[in-house]
Amino acid sequence: MTTGCCYGVGVGPGDPELMTLKAARVLAECPVIAYFQATKRTSNARRIIDEHVRADHVEMPLVYPVTTEPVAPSLYETLLVDFYDESAKRIAEFLDAGLDVAVLCEGDPFFFGSYMYVHHRLSDRYATEVVPGVSSLVACAAVLGTPLAARDEVLTVLSGVLPVDVLAERIASADTVVVLKVGRNLGRVRDAVGRAGRTDDAFYVERATMAGERVLPLADADLADAPYFSMVVIPSVAAAR
Amino acid sequence: MTTGCCYGVGVGPGDPELMTLKAARVLAECPVIAYFQATKRTSNARRIIDEHVRADHVEMPLVYPVTTEPVAPSLYETLLVDFYDESAKRIAEFLDAGLDVAVLCEGDPFFFGSYMYVHHRLSDRYATEVVPGVSSLVACAAVLGTPLAARDEVLTVLSGVLPVDVLAERIASADTVVVLKVGRNLGRVRDAVGRAGRTDDAFYVERATMAGERVLPLADADLADAPYFSMVVIPSVAAAR
Repeated sequence: MTTGCCYGVGVGPGDPELMTLKAARVLAECPVIAYFQATKRTSNARRIIDEHVRADHVEMPLVYPVTTEPVAPSLYETLLVDFYDESAKRIAEFLDAGLDVAVLCEGDPFFFGSYMYVHHRLSDRYATEVVPGVSSLVACAAVLGTPLAARDEVLTVLSGVLPVDVLAERIASADTVVVLKVGRNLGRVRDAVGRAGRTDDAFYVERATMAGERVLPLADADLADAPYFSMVVIPSVAAAR
Repeated sequence: MTTGCCYGVGVGPGDPELMTLKAARVLAECPVIAYFQATKRTSNARRIIDEHVRADHVEMPLVYPVTTEPVAPSLYETLLVDFYDESAKRIAEFLDAGLDVAVLCEGDPFFFGSYMYVHHRLSDRYATEVVPGVSSLVACAAVLGTPLAARDEVLTVLSGVLPVDVLAERIASADTVVVLKVGRNLGRVRDAVGRAGRTDDAFYVERATMAGERVLPLADADLADAPYFSMVVIPSVAAAR
């Protein structure tokens, strides 16, 4: 029997209409839909594709063992490795049975996402295909109504978990900056933007293209309650010319 | 009479199935479809949406006055400013008549695209909306079958028109690098990648997700005939762990 194909399906930044035609087709054709999910929350990716799920789809939530609870870094790493091993094994059971599996990914599967961890565990033994998606990177520019980058500008994408010194240096040396995974790092990100002298150009974007979307000057963002999928954007200067 | 809305519609990297559901809806609803086009070539963006064009759509090709012909830089700049002024004026005539206009953009409208130049000329007087699209940035990772960036990696996006020293320095200091607008700059980009000591990790990607797609180790790419929309990608290292 032919084994199934594992699809990494980018479902876009949040608005269900920002899925691609290909993502919709692949979901219609795959009997099994898998998605990562935090312990006590519904999956955002699953919510995005809600209208595409039929009663005959098999759904496979892959529930993270830890999310924001305090855990020692070494234990956290072990727990996650085990979790991705186990997730890949569960997906492989369907692939072995000849069924295609769609693994949902918010934004794009290969742009700072979790799909890559199951991809690495499966791609040497099974057919895999990645369906690229609209990333939060470009969604935030659309939401701001301003170009992200133009001409020969240097665009740097950073993670909010980086040390504040690294962030400040990177922000100072780039034209256009997007900081992902801001959430609880917002205070440090704001410090770094300030040190780089870019506060006046910076925006805070939360839940871009989703219900509850918020856009604020970075200086006005509330430090206490930034969700994980919030971003800080310093858009193009050259584009305005 | 209410004036029309100008939509910047990202149509994705090349595969017509990588358009979003929203792009398809907006095209179905807009009576006028505008697109930039080089003098002697058909528009790639127009080709991508071919199946969505009806006989009752008004098509408005916006033909660049120059493309790759040798022109003095100052004249080139003047010609382009006049061209974008004129393009915005032609679009505004339809908006004034109460008709919505969809301006097509390969990839995403606000990610190093030309749409921004008409956007700037119209957004103070007319309703505008940007429909984000799948950018070539993430499409090339899907085509390579390898994650673009993971964890806290720094992703830098560069333009191939930058000086070789700048390119080399930027490439050396980033984890993941994508160089856009490679084309005739391929020789210089390859030199810069070599100087940064990253040649072994680098790929050349041409026409990602389109007919004629090519992926090669950068060292094997043919310097003579790289098209404008070719890219050089140095993908994630951390993602492989």
